[in-house]
Amino acid sequence: MGARRQITGFSNPTVKFLRSLREKKHRKASGRFLAEGLRLLTDARESGHLPEVLVMAEGRDPHPLLAALEADVLAAGGEVIETSDEILGKITGKDNPQAVAGAFAEFDTSLGSIEHGSAKIWLVAQALRDPGNLGTMLRTGDAVGAGGLILIDDCADPFSVEAVRASMGAVFTQRIAQARWEEFLPWLRSGAGQLVAASLREAVDYRTAPYAAPCFLMVGNESRGLPEAYELACDLRVTMPMKGRADSLNAAVAGAVLAYEALAHLGD
Amino acid sequence: MGARRQITGFSNPTVKFLRSLREKKHRKASGRFLAEGLRLLTDARESGHLPEVLVMAEGRDPHPLLAALEADVLAAGGEVIETSDEILGKITGKDNPQAVAGAFAEFDTSLGSIEHGSAKIWLVAQALRDPGNLGTMLRTGDAVGAGGLILIDDCADPFSVEAVRASMGAVFTQRIAQARWEEFLPWLRSGAGQLVAASLREAVDYRTAPYAAPCFLMVGNESRGLPEAYELACDLRVTMPMKGRADSLNAAVAGAVLAYEALAHLGD
Repeated sequence: MGARRQITGFSNPTVKFLRSLREKKHRKASGRFLAEGLRLLTDARESGHLPEVLVMAEGRDPHPLLAALEADVLAAGGEVIETSDEILGKITGKDNPQAVAGAFAEFDTSLGSIEHGSAKIWLVAQALRDPGNLGTMLRTGDAVGAGGLILIDDCADPFSVEAVRASMGAVFTQRIAQARWEEFLPWLRSGAGQLVAASLREAVDYRTAPYAAPCFLMVGNESRGLPEAYELACDLRVTMPMKGRADSLNAAVAGAVLAYEALAHLGD
Repeated sequence: MGARRQITGFSNPTVKFLRSLREKKHRKASGRFLAEGLRLLTDARESGHLPEVLVMAEGRDPHPLLAALEADVLAAGGEVIETSDEILGKITGKDNPQAVAGAFAEFDTSLGSIEHGSAKIWLVAQALRDPGNLGTMLRTGDAVGAGGLILIDDCADPFSVEAVRASMGAVFTQRIAQARWEEFLPWLRSGAGQLVAASLREAVDYRTAPYAAPCFLMVGNESRGLPEAYELACDLRVTMPMKGRADSLNAAVAGAVLAYEALAHLGD
C-alpha cells in the first residue's frame, strides 16, 4: 500500500520535485513527467498508466473517477498528496490549476519498443520544435488509429507539460520513439514500411498517391521543412494543394491532412 | 513623405506605444496591431498593407526587400525608426527579436466586408480561444484558397502577436470578420452559402458529404465544441473518423482536414 499525506509548505521537497518537472533537465534526470487534470489522468489510468505521485487540491469536489484513481495509486504503492490550490498552481504553473496532477515515469522511447506492422499508420516528425505541435500530432495519431509518433533528430520534449496538455491524453495511448535519422532509416528498412514525406519537390498529389500499410507519414521542421536527403530517402513524396501566397502548412496540420487521407485509403 | 529617426531610449513614447500593442485593450483603443519579421512584412506589403510605423534594428544586415519596404513606408507617409536590438526585443517581447517589426492599422472586420460568393470556401470558428489555433486557421485558409475566416462569438483576437505570428502572413491575405451568432446567421442566409459543421452528432461521413460552394466550414470551441443549436442550424453536419480514445481533434486540425476535403470536392 502507498502513502497518503498532506503538504502545506511551498518548500516541501516533494513540492519542489514536482515543480522541477516543468524543466526538461529535471525530467531527464529523474525520468519523471507531469500530467494534470482528472480527464487526462483518467485516460492514463484506463491506458494502464498510474502516477507514482498523485497531488490533489484540498477543496476539490468529490468525483468517483478521482476516488478510483486515488485507490489505484495507493494500491500500486504510490503516494497521494493533498495540498492547497496555491501550491498546486505553483506545481503546474497555472493560475487556475486543475484540481489534480500526477508525476509519471517516462516510457521507453527507443525504436525497439515499436513493431512496424502493429499499426497501419505511423506519424514521423523531424526536428519538430513546438511542443504544442508535438502534442497535437499525438492527438491526431490517436484519432486516426496510428500506432504512434516517431521523433527524428532534435524535437521538442514529448513529456513537457505543454506537449502532454496538447496531446489531450494521447501521450498515454500512442507509442513514442525518439531517434536520430541515422538510426531511424536502418531500423525502418529492417522491416515492412512505406516512408512518405509531405513535400514541395517533384511529388505525387496526396489524394491519389499509392499509400501502403504500414505507412510512415513524415513531416519536417516548422521553418525549414525536411532536409532534401531525407525526402529523397522516402518511398513516396506527396504534395497538398497550396492555393495562396504561403508555400507550407503548419506542421501538425500537414501531418493531420495527410494522416486522414492515408486512413481513407488504408481503411480499417 | 514620411519621417525617419533613431530612438535610443526605452521610455520613448513611440517605443511605449509599440510595446503596448501586445495587449488587446491597447490594440482596441488605438486600432493598431503589431507584426514582426521581414517575411511577414513583405507578405503584407505585397498584399497591399504597409505599416504606419516600421521599426528596424540598427545592426541588421542590408536586404533588398527591407530597402523596398522602407521606401514604400516613407513614400506612403509612414514613420521609419531605427533602434537597438534590445529595444526591438522589448517591443516584440522576444529575446531574439526579428530585425524588423511594424505597426499596422486594423482592418474592417464587419460581416459587411465579405461577399458570400467571392470564394468557394470560408472558414468559420466559434468561440475559438487559442490565438495559435486562430492564426493556424488563417494559414490553412490561405492554403486552400478560402476567402477568409469568420469569428463567431468570443474568440481570441486575430490581431494578437501570437495569432499574427501563427498565421504566417495570412492575416494580411485572408478576410477576417467578427460577429455574434445572432448577426452571423441572418447575414449568411441573406445570400448563397452552405453552412457545414464538424460534428459528433447524427452526421454524414466527411468524405462523401455533398459540399456545395460557397461552403462555410464551421468548427467550435476547443473544449466545448459547437453549441447544439448552432449545429442544428447548419445545412450539413459532417463527421471524421475517430479511431482512438479521444472524441475530438484539435480545432485547427479539424478545420484543416475539413477544408482540404471540401477543396477536393469543390475543385479550383
